[in-house]
Amino acid sequence: MFSVKGSIWIESNKGAFIGMGRVILLEKIEEHGSITVAAKSMKMSYRQAWELVNSMNKQSKQPLVIASSGGAGGGGTKVTKEGKKIIDLFKSMNERFHKFNEEESKKLKI
Amino acid sequence: MFSVKGSIWIESNKGAFIGMGRVILLEKIEEHGSITVAAKSMKMSYRQAWELVNSMNKQSKQPLVIASSGGAGGGGTKVTKEGKKIIDLFKSMNERFHKFNEEESKKLKI
Repeated sequence: MFSVKGSIWIESNKGAFIGMGRVILLEKIEEHGSITVAAKSMKMSYRQAWELVNSMNKQSKQPLVIASSGGAGGGGTKVTKEGKKIIDLFKSMNERFHKFNEEESKKLKI
Repeated sequence: MFSVKGSIWIESNKGAFIGMGRVILLEKIEEHGSITVAAKSMKMSYRQAWELVNSMNKQSKQPLVIASSGGAGGGGTKVTKEGKKIIDLFKSMNERFHKFNEEESKKLKI
């Protein structure tokens, strides 16, 4: 009847770096190749999405998202190798956190 | 430079049961013997504090807080044995959660 819930995120000395919301945004950018379309799919303004991307890029040594304009492929926005690494890193950690919560839920004596 | 942060709480099928904010409220009630004084010390309205206490009491088999009025001791509000058990249970779990975060922080490769 009782269960343990929670959320985790990664911070740097400049503030929030990444959490589940930002991971989903990165995945949507990867899927659509566009911050505009990714933002719309999450019912978020372009400005808000851009600020989250900018915040992540500024905190990381290498950018997580790069915008390429023009060229034969018509440009588009991409999640970098570093960005994909961060997505995987966060999701693995979040899975361990869910296991922590499940184990704590089993232990609860209320 | 990067570290893992987060928060956890316990839910029942009726919603949030207890988290760090409610634990602090219970401790303040225990300290002051009064919901009114406890609420003030947390810059919370009496109504808000009472609703949190009521929410916890309604979800638990035994109440976490009881109000006794009058008598030789002049009445007062007390955290029950069950309430103290829940405080300890949550704080122990929260310590394990902090350890989880510390270990994950050490592992971070960003």
